[in-house]
Amino acid sequence: MTSDWHQTELRVRYAETDQMGIAHHSNYIVWFEVARSDYCRKVGVPYTEMEANDVQLIVAEVSLRYKRPAFYDDLLLIRVSTKEIRSRSLRFAYEVVRKSDLELLAVGETLHVVTDKARRVTSLPAEYRNLFEA
Amino acid sequence: MTSDWHQTELRVRYAETDQMGIAHHSNYIVWFEVARSDYCRKVGVPYTEMEANDVQLIVAEVSLRYKRPAFYDDLLLIRVSTKEIRSRSLRFAYEVVRKSDLELLAVGETLHVVTDKARRVTSLPAEYRNLFEA
Amino acid sequence: MTSDWHQTELRVRYAETDQMGIAHHSNYIVWFEVARSDYCRKVGVPYTEMEANDVQLIVAEVSLRYKRPAFYDDLLLIRVSTKEIRSRSLRFAYEVVRKSDLELLAVGETLHVVTDKARRVTSLPAEYRNLFEA
Amino acid sequence: MTSDWHQTELRVRYAETDQMGIAHHSNYIVWFEVARSDYCRKVGVPYTEMEANDVQLIVAEVSLRYKRPAFYDDLLLIRVSTKEIRSRSLRFAYEVVRKSDLELLAVGETLHVVTDKARRVTSLPAEYRNLFEA
Repeated sequence: MTSDWHQTELRVRYAETDQMGIAHHSNYIVWFEVARSDYCRKVGVPYTEMEANDVQLIVAEVSLRYKRPAFYDDLLLIRVSTKEIRSRSLRFAYEVVRKSDLELLAVGETLHVVTDKARRVTSLPAEYRNLFEA
Repeated sequence: MTSDWHQTELRVRYAETDQMGIAHHSNYIVWFEVARSDYCRKVGVPYTEMEANDVQLIVAEVSLRYKRPAFYDDLLLIRVSTKEIRSRSLRFAYEVVRKSDLELLAVGETLHVVTDKARRVTSLPAEYRNLFEA
Repeated sequence: MTSDWHQTELRVRYAETDQMGIAHHSNYIVWFEVARSDYCRKVGVPYTEMEANDVQLIVAEVSLRYKRPAFYDDLLLIRVSTKEIRSRSLRFAYEVVRKSDLELLAVGETLHVVTDKARRVTSLPAEYRNLFEA
Repeated sequence: MTSDWHQTELRVRYAETDQMGIAHHSNYIVWFEVARSDYCRKVGVPYTEMEANDVQLIVAEVSLRYKRPAFYDDLLLIRVSTKEIRSRSLRFAYEVVRKSDLELLAVGETLHVVTDKARRVTSLPAEYRNLFEA
């Protein structure tokens, strides 16, 4: 883990398990979003404020590699960092780590296009860009 | 099943199971909504049209009794009917039945308050009311 | 809030919102489960341990009244208490409160039947019962 | 669409929307699974039967590119095909298409590792392999 990671802690919910006895793989996308949301708030760009300012980060790409399963009640660390900041897009990287043994469970990336509420591609406001780059 | 039931068929998704090996109980609320949505479309009041006309049916109450589990890949019949139509609220009743053996898996009800998009309570337009009553 | 409530804090996820701009009503059932799970752990009966000991708490009934909407990023307090302890069933009561203004957003109950993994009704082990009653 | 695609039809659920007014991006993963599950059943390898025979297809990788949003009540075609069959893994490709205008909304892939229920990597039984290759 580099010092660039922002880290969010969450616990696997029973509703997130499937009959294989593990956390269903779709939840990782939601956990990424939870960590990204916390990260934006911490950086000083709460996503509620972005939306209020007519800026949306629409998800354009998601990739995920699952290495080990997560189980019900596991405390997980969801790590996120900004991987690429462009005028009209942002790329984030993620790691999912089990807190108890620091096993790396999954890695992933998401690419987001900056749009207004009418879903027209626009530029990331300079003030937001500066906060993400800081 | 009375002739008043509208019936929607759906199949239990793998993602809807939990580590108990059954469909997680939260999904029934979503299935009720799927059936209610189909029902409104069939009655002639598609919910997309209601929202476009500034009418929302906000969920005010939900109750559910689970009798038998539903399993992955089960084909289910979700039955819905209008139980009570008032000027500012609608109550729907539901049954969840397994298609293969017609076992009754769950019953439930939802109460909806009619509002505009600003979430102010309003009256159900007469045209909609007539369609639900027909 | 009485001293009997166990309280869990969680934040509304973006994925939990719907196009009405509020947390979808199905999530409250999941939040109840999160709080119940924390509560069992705190009482000394982690649900993972119960399952390992061939004890399951199958959900038999759910009821919910929604009073005010919860929004994305809201910090919520999910309160849970044991309402009724019988030899073969447990009833829990819940409140959902917004942390910032302590508005009561929803109340609910769940009834659980005690079973083994083969879903045969059984009795709640005395040691568990004592912990819930303490 | 090639003749190799298996196609599943589903309708976007209200619960699958988010406050951006579109289907939340995590649902595509679930829709892929729905289509894959239908595909396996059609090919003659129902996933319930695979699990009963101690064969699991654990998700190892997911990738997704979102091109256009899907909206509540949209009828979608989820297309799936086998992209790569190895002794111990299977790769599927997907397309999500809106039925009304045949717009391509998203494309993706999933890689699955063949394991037994103890999650030990194993080989895909020849009978299953033959069915997928047919």
